[in-house]
Amino acid sequence: MARRLRSELYRQLEPQAWRRAGLSPVNRALVALILASVALAVLETEPSLGAAFHRGLGVAQVLIGGVFLAEYVVRIWIAPEDPRYAERFGRLRYALSWPALVDLLALAPAFLLVGGGEAYLLRMARLLRILRIARLGRFSRASARLIAALAARRFEFAVTLAFGGVLMLLASTLLYLVEGSGQPEAFGSIPRAMWWSIATLTTVGYGDVTPITPLGRVFAGATAVVGIGVIAMPAGIVAAALGEAMRPERRPTVRPQAREDAAPARN
Amino acid sequence: MARRLRSELYRQLEPQAWRRAGLSPVNRALVALILASVALAVLETEPSLGAAFHRGLGVAQVLIGGVFLAEYVVRIWIAPEDPRYAERFGRLRYALSWPALVDLLALAPAFLLVGGGEAYLLRMARLLRILRIARLGRFSRASARLIAALAARRFEFAVTLAFGGVLMLLASTLLYLVEGSGQPEAFGSIPRAMWWSIATLTTVGYGDVTPITPLGRVFAGATAVVGIGVIAMPAGIVAAALGEAMRPERRPTVRPQAREDAAPARN
Amino acid sequence: MARRLRSELYRQLEPQAWRRAGLSPVNRALVALILASVALAVLETEPSLGAAFHRGLGVAQVLIGGVFLAEYVVRIWIAPEDPRYAERFGRLRYALSWPALVDLLALAPAFLLVGGGEAYLLRMARLLRILRIARLGRFSRASARLIAALAARRFEFAVTLAFGGVLMLLASTLLYLVEGSGQPEAFGSIPRAMWWSIATLTTVGYGDVTPITPLGRVFAGATAVVGIGVIAMPAGIVAAALGEAMRPERRPTVRPQAREDAAPARN
Amino acid sequence: MARRLRSELYRQLEPQAWRRAGLSPVNRALVALILASVALAVLETEPSLGAAFHRGLGVAQVLIGGVFLAEYVVRIWIAPEDPRYAERFGRLRYALSWPALVDLLALAPAFLLVGGGEAYLLRMARLLRILRIARLGRFSRASARLIAALAARRFEFAVTLAFGGVLMLLASTLLYLVEGSGQPEAFGSIPRAMWWSIATLTTVGYGDVTPITPLGRVFAGATAVVGIGVIAMPAGIVAAALGEAMRPERRPTVRPQAREDAAPARN
Repeated sequence: MARRLRSELYRQLEPQAWRRAGLSPVNRALVALILASVALAVLETEPSLGAAFHRGLGVAQVLIGGVFLAEYVVRIWIAPEDPRYAERFGRLRYALSWPALVDLLALAPAFLLVGGGEAYLLRMARLLRILRIARLGRFSRASARLIAALAARRFEFAVTLAFGGVLMLLASTLLYLVEGSGQPEAFGSIPRAMWWSIATLTTVGYGDVTPITPLGRVFAGATAVVGIGVIAMPAGIVAAALGEAMRPERRPTVRPQAREDAAPARN
Repeated sequence: MARRLRSELYRQLEPQAWRRAGLSPVNRALVALILASVALAVLETEPSLGAAFHRGLGVAQVLIGGVFLAEYVVRIWIAPEDPRYAERFGRLRYALSWPALVDLLALAPAFLLVGGGEAYLLRMARLLRILRIARLGRFSRASARLIAALAARRFEFAVTLAFGGVLMLLASTLLYLVEGSGQPEAFGSIPRAMWWSIATLTTVGYGDVTPITPLGRVFAGATAVVGIGVIAMPAGIVAAALGEAMRPERRPTVRPQAREDAAPARN
Repeated sequence: MARRLRSELYRQLEPQAWRRAGLSPVNRALVALILASVALAVLETEPSLGAAFHRGLGVAQVLIGGVFLAEYVVRIWIAPEDPRYAERFGRLRYALSWPALVDLLALAPAFLLVGGGEAYLLRMARLLRILRIARLGRFSRASARLIAALAARRFEFAVTLAFGGVLMLLASTLLYLVEGSGQPEAFGSIPRAMWWSIATLTTVGYGDVTPITPLGRVFAGATAVVGIGVIAMPAGIVAAALGEAMRPERRPTVRPQAREDAAPARN
Repeated sequence: MARRLRSELYRQLEPQAWRRAGLSPVNRALVALILASVALAVLETEPSLGAAFHRGLGVAQVLIGGVFLAEYVVRIWIAPEDPRYAERFGRLRYALSWPALVDLLALAPAFLLVGGGEAYLLRMARLLRILRIARLGRFSRASARLIAALAARRFEFAVTLAFGGVLMLLASTLLYLVEGSGQPEAFGSIPRAMWWSIATLTTVGYGDVTPITPLGRVFAGATAVVGIGVIAMPAGIVAAALGEAMRPERRPTVRPQAREDAAPARN
């Protein structure tokens, strides 16, 4: 009977073991709990919410931590259901696998909170709970497909990044030379001018630091125009990568003959 | 004779019943009236326009409301022309359909205005008129096609949104840790830092809140660079989705043979 | 002999009559002169350049105006070389054609400047010279191809624009309700809030006007996220339209057979 | 034996001569050294780092310069290994080739620094070291492919740039007319208004200069909306160009027959 419970729990907890579409009820509840836990960790940093609210948040975090602790224990217990961990030392090997270690790491802060401790470190530690959200990744089969499409273009992204870096260097150098003497705080060195150039090339444009001389504005305008290219390149690469990746996923049952004829046109 | 009038009105009011290209004259007038009504509702909120102008706006809104009331009554009268509402209780079933309820909801504020009432609620209620614009949607067959192309990619958009959310969380946490003590008002908690991180990741970059420490600026620069990815992803998904959706709409008369051969290349 | 001169001038001035690649030497000189004339008109508005400089600009504009006047006269003289204006009243019909009228309109300010006159009107009139740049359009055959590709998608752009307009209305209304009482100057009416919402939806983000209440910032953040969609849509439509348009232009000599086989895959 | 050393050095230094994937160990070290040298040149401009740090940077730059000098000499020695420089005067012809001259130019500042000299020129000269990064380009075969794809679309980019220039002119002129009298510093001439219009059309939106009159804001809003098109166009062109360029690189072994049939669909 423990066997059947273990098998059912495995089916509920392991997305790949779930036959029907979407997530199992248990996994759906866990996702909701992870999101709630992260939202609480975010709210805990807000000082204006009052002491009573913070006590409530602390209690909620401990309760949620208890559920995740239970889940962690259950996952170790059911590990041998997974063919990879079916052999001996399976549970130990599972406990040392990357997903299990992330789970353990994300469990820590909930209980450090109870025991008290050095304030600053605890504040850091609490934020580790946000790592829990990384576990959402394993629930999603399709995001992996998207990541694969982008990863296949990682070289094009690297070239774009390098190109953007050279442009940032060039823009920072020009503005340092032109605006450096007039605005030493903002453009008095190339590293300082980089704060401006990155805000301009990404078209964020905070405006806390802007050139004031005519020549500085001419170079800044040219940088802004070139910045369009810097944001157009990744958009274009993503579009081309997804345009390719989206097509085959829709036609899993093409006749071999047709596939042969039109193959060059396909991808 | 009433029958012929009803049939003609149905042809004029129901876009699908209009055989010729574009909208019927009556529908074109209604679209213009909806746009005028929304523009008036927007102008009504501007206090600097003067009392006489506001009285004029009020009168105009009542007149436009009268036209929409007449249209509402006519639409109920002609409902049985629609095959879906031709059977018994057709008019009642039409009156309870979603488009008819939106019409009714959008009618309400025009007449609440006449009767007077609590000022704040009325101000809210007047804005409901803007819902009228939602009716424009039913005039347009083609926007549905665009929406369908994007809806087919809703999963990719959701993954991008989730990815953007994780990035926002990460950027907010880093800036909270680095800039929190120096600028408690802007970065004193993760929720506060989110205002900055969302403005940066979307490349809006208001600049009302910016990091001032060197380390904060390094993280902010990295966030801005990553933000390019956040805006490149949806642009790429839209491009891939539309690239696919636009193709078939142009070739409705492809020979079956050719269609068969090149089918895998098409979508 | 006048005949041969007329024929040669027509070949030099009419881009379509020029057999070799690119622009004829005369047209290349005219394009340079138009650009110089526009640059001078722009510089003329700058008060800090000094009286002597402005006198020099004035003289230069009159000289350039003389060249354009000569070109205008020559174009009328050679009009009958064009098959469209070869019949009787050809020169008159050419003089009343749209390109000739634009030329005439762009000639006016250069000579109004000489005669003196009311200062404000002259300032306006001088700017008409910028219209000359519109003539560059007729030199370029290829930009027409780009415009055609985008014009074929004008409906998709219109839907995007309407969608963006509804979003702007919604964002302005929300911010007006939430921030209107606290910042009456910036959000005290829907038209005022539109200044903020258009800067946010287009991701320009000036930052001269930003929400200060937590709820206002939540809505503003949502608007910024939605704004990504507003800029992703046109980028995606352009990408899809050009992706289609770029292909056929490269293969003007495809064998009919091959064209037939792969036709469905092509556009 | 010198022959074998020369051959081995050529294999290590010339990326095309390296048979295995990626870069040779020597080239990998050189890339790291170039990046370090550029980073040091950037840090040298920061005055807050202290005199001791700057002395250290100076020493590091001379050491790195020594390595690059050695590399320059070695490259001249091994030049005849390259078939292009195998004939007589090969070393001289290599020394006069573009890559060798860039190397020489980038070597200069390291040793000018040692000899002392006029401060301002030296500051400029040091920045020439950044040119060294241009040599990274020759290590990368694939970036050339990306550049080729974009260069094939240079005409479309030029049309977009011209279109953006006309829009900038139009927006600057309108804002000059409307806001010029109220804000003479920011909009008192068309060149001044261009600083605002370029920040708006590129969606950078610094916000240091914004219109304040209602009419000025209406025109500015329209400019921001049009600016979306200005950034959507290059993104779309890049997407279409890469969408095309990415395809053939994956299928180098298509059967001639299939290639013939579907050729029109390919590019």
